[in-house]
Amino acid sequence: MAKTNITPREKDYSQWYLDIVEEAGMAENSGVRGCMVIKPHGYAIWELIQAAMDKRIKETGHVNAYFPLLIPKSYLMKEAEHVEGFAPEVAEVTRAGGEELAEPYVIRPTSETIIGATYAKWIKSWRDLPVLVNQWANVMRWEMRTRPFLRTSEFLWQEGHTAHATEDEAERETLMILHDVYTDVVERVMAIPVLRGLKTENEKFAGALRTYAIEALMQDGKALQAGTSHNLGQNFARSFEIKYTTPDNREEFCWTTSWGVSTRLVGALIMAHSDDDGLVLPPQVAPVQVVVVPIFKNEEERAQVMEVVNRITSDWRDRFRWKLDERDHVSPGFKFNEWEVKGVPVRVEVGMKDVAKGTVAVARRDVPGREGKSFVEQKGLTERITALLVEIQQSLFDRALRFREEHTFEAETYEDFKTKVERGFVRVYFDGTGEDEDKIKADTKATVRVLPFDQPEEEGVCFYTGRKTKRQAIFARSY
Amino acid sequence: MAKTNITPREKDYSQWYLDIVEEAGMAENSGVRGCMVIKPHGYAIWELIQAAMDKRIKETGHVNAYFPLLIPKSYLMKEAEHVEGFAPEVAEVTRAGGEELAEPYVIRPTSETIIGATYAKWIKSWRDLPVLVNQWANVMRWEMRTRPFLRTSEFLWQEGHTAHATEDEAERETLMILHDVYTDVVERVMAIPVLRGLKTENEKFAGALRTYAIEALMQDGKALQAGTSHNLGQNFARSFEIKYTTPDNREEFCWTTSWGVSTRLVGALIMAHSDDDGLVLPPQVAPVQVVVVPIFKNEEERAQVMEVVNRITSDWRDRFRWKLDERDHVSPGFKFNEWEVKGVPVRVEVGMKDVAKGTVAVARRDVPGREGKSFVEQKGLTERITALLVEIQQSLFDRALRFREEHTFEAETYEDFKTKVERGFVRVYFDGTGEDEDKIKADTKATVRVLPFDQPEEEGVCFYTGRKTKRQAIFARSY
Repeated sequence: MAKTNITPREKDYSQWYLDIVEEAGMAENSGVRGCMVIKPHGYAIWELIQAAMDKRIKETGHVNAYFPLLIPKSYLMKEAEHVEGFAPEVAEVTRAGGEELAEPYVIRPTSETIIGATYAKWIKSWRDLPVLVNQWANVMRWEMRTRPFLRTSEFLWQEGHTAHATEDEAERETLMILHDVYTDVVERVMAIPVLRGLKTENEKFAGALRTYAIEALMQDGKALQAGTSHNLGQNFARSFEIKYTTPDNREEFCWTTSWGVSTRLVGALIMAHSDDDGLVLPPQVAPVQVVVVPIFKNEEERAQVMEVVNRITSDWRDRFRWKLDERDHVSPGFKFNEWEVKGVPVRVEVGMKDVAKGTVAVARRDVPGREGKSFVEQKGLTERITALLVEIQQSLFDRALRFREEHTFEAETYEDFKTKVERGFVRVYFDGTGEDEDKIKADTKATVRVLPFDQPEEEGVCFYTGRKTKRQAIFARSY
Repeated sequence: MAKTNITPREKDYSQWYLDIVEEAGMAENSGVRGCMVIKPHGYAIWELIQAAMDKRIKETGHVNAYFPLLIPKSYLMKEAEHVEGFAPEVAEVTRAGGEELAEPYVIRPTSETIIGATYAKWIKSWRDLPVLVNQWANVMRWEMRTRPFLRTSEFLWQEGHTAHATEDEAERETLMILHDVYTDVVERVMAIPVLRGLKTENEKFAGALRTYAIEALMQDGKALQAGTSHNLGQNFARSFEIKYTTPDNREEFCWTTSWGVSTRLVGALIMAHSDDDGLVLPPQVAPVQVVVVPIFKNEEERAQVMEVVNRITSDWRDRFRWKLDERDHVSPGFKFNEWEVKGVPVRVEVGMKDVAKGTVAVARRDVPGREGKSFVEQKGLTERITALLVEIQQSLFDRALRFREEHTFEAETYEDFKTKVERGFVRVYFDGTGEDEDKIKADTKATVRVLPFDQPEEEGVCFYTGRKTKRQAIFARSY
């Protein structure tokens, strides 16, 4: 019998992902098409990601607020590119309180329009700027093909919306969020390395001047867009009349930005670190960082084992998120397995041998099997585990980074590109048009993930057009 | 000129409330009928209430999860009383992704139905019980007459949903939430005293067996239902087939509960403590607890004043939520006024006299004018303010409790009742029927707020029917 009900990655990556979502108790389908129930374990991980994001969003000067779920359909129509991008996938409220509505509302697919209409009221003078607001909310985009966390009709996210006096300031905000908030959380808290850069016109947000993104590589060699930050230019300011008076009394349109990360990050977390035994969680986003499993055969042994357990855990309350698994109707082996599937970074086992020797067994989730298990003195255990959690966090990042490096390629010809892009990121000289991007996508399913910030000094030959160019792009297939 | 744009309470209580909401930057109307924008100051207060609730919800063994925003309309129809209560006020999604839906969805007015359908899948055996889950979410009830925070079509709330093996356990859960979570937060964190008890059949939740509530008294003598906790009996378990197998292998329906508090609490907070100068916030829910206003005439004075400011605030970072108001385009008087309107509990002023004397001026928001202002040694200031914040918190609670005591009456006749119920709570012997409650409401606008837990030992005469009874009820007009 297999240790778990999880399909091996090698056999069927997509099923492996779904199996982990189910077996680790992360989410499940609901009776509502394309909408998931986020189960307690999945939600607890999201809460930790949220807390890390919220802290940084506030530290960088933003405040939270809340705007309506419903948006008058006419608002959506005001920005030409925006409506083209979002109108096909909105859910519409046409009846309420038992009556047909004169004008339908849409459930927000994103809130630029309703927030734009609000900012037009809030902002009068240069003294009112910048406006730096964030919202935690649910949004709805009617999706045909869904997958838990990665693509669902309803999802949870934060959306930042800021207004500035100058283009330069808006651009700095857009990049600051990308670097200091999103990259910092995804790399240091979630232990997932990201590539950063600009989106092409084809891939940018509907209504933006420029979109920047962080992109992570999953274990099947596909990219996942983990966060985006948009310089909206004056597009929404013009559509919604967001204007301010300058110190010398001229009237100007504001420059606005928006930026978001969503419950999609939970999907990224699963796919970046997990293995065939289940979820693997970096300690910083693990709802349970340490689980203690006492092992005994009778009441007498139980008393001795629990005495040790109580002693070693006496100062853990403010140190770790930890849990004691005292269930008596399942075996220790069953417990080990269950906590492994749920991705708990460290497991501590205490049995009669440990009572006698003054030790405990410590197992690392990130190093499966015997190799990750060691016997540790009870004395000084708290410090050992503290250090171990830091080590695991770093080790997961390093492993993911190594994987990405091994799966990042260069290509000089389209033939070469086609083979390599099946396995990861491909960095190429590229001066093709949006139409070229479409053709490449039709051929290979790959798109430009970013035009990376670190562009070359030297000219090279475009892998697709054969023309000389200084522009490099990073392609991949993506979620 | 009036100090603020706030209408005095005595003149027009309802307008006074709306003025505070506006002037303190709490919320504003949106372009969506009945939906408000919660502005940063209002949202920051909600976040503090949320954090206090969430902490206690988790400490009492519950975990958070997230269920879909949309509910198939057929789910709503399954529980007879529930559909009668909620169907008239739902918003319906009839189109999505550009197509008419075969079955419309409603935006959740509350989630008993979709969560019930989910629990039926989660729960198989007695070992799966209890299920103790909470959700933070937005809900929608199409309201005709709205008022910011108190009654809006969309509002934010938490809704707990638990399932148990026995009626007794469900009842204990329902009461534990009322006492240990809701009363604790509203009384100790928000400084609002509450009455507790059972709702009558007329006033209970649509689909519940029993509803318990906490009720607070506002400054106009009207009651506000601040939180409810429902023992749902087996009603939803039967409608949604939430069953479990007992240890001796029988199949039984679960006993479920649900309980919620919402952004309405922000409205309660405003109406319980504020005065004609604006918002008054208990320190525990004040986004800014202490504001420091430096006062100087020139750069030289500025340097001396700021040296003191930096010294006295050097250890405040982890002690207080505080803010330094260094704006140079508005006067100190303007600043005092603005922070008063926003309800900041303590203001510290530092001017040249303070530099010379080694003092600062400290003003309490809860005691307006000269009476609340004192000069305090710079040395030991942190400790003084720490103690002062505790004192203000207690003082606001005591004041609200005194107000409630002064506005809680007894009545033996209906005539007497009619006069008194215009001014506050009226506690009476009452053995009337639901129809009697309807008549009393039509006459006086007053309803039974609760049948209080502390019922008398002695019989008395019902103020309405004249019959002897041991049951007492507390009536009031309410929000």
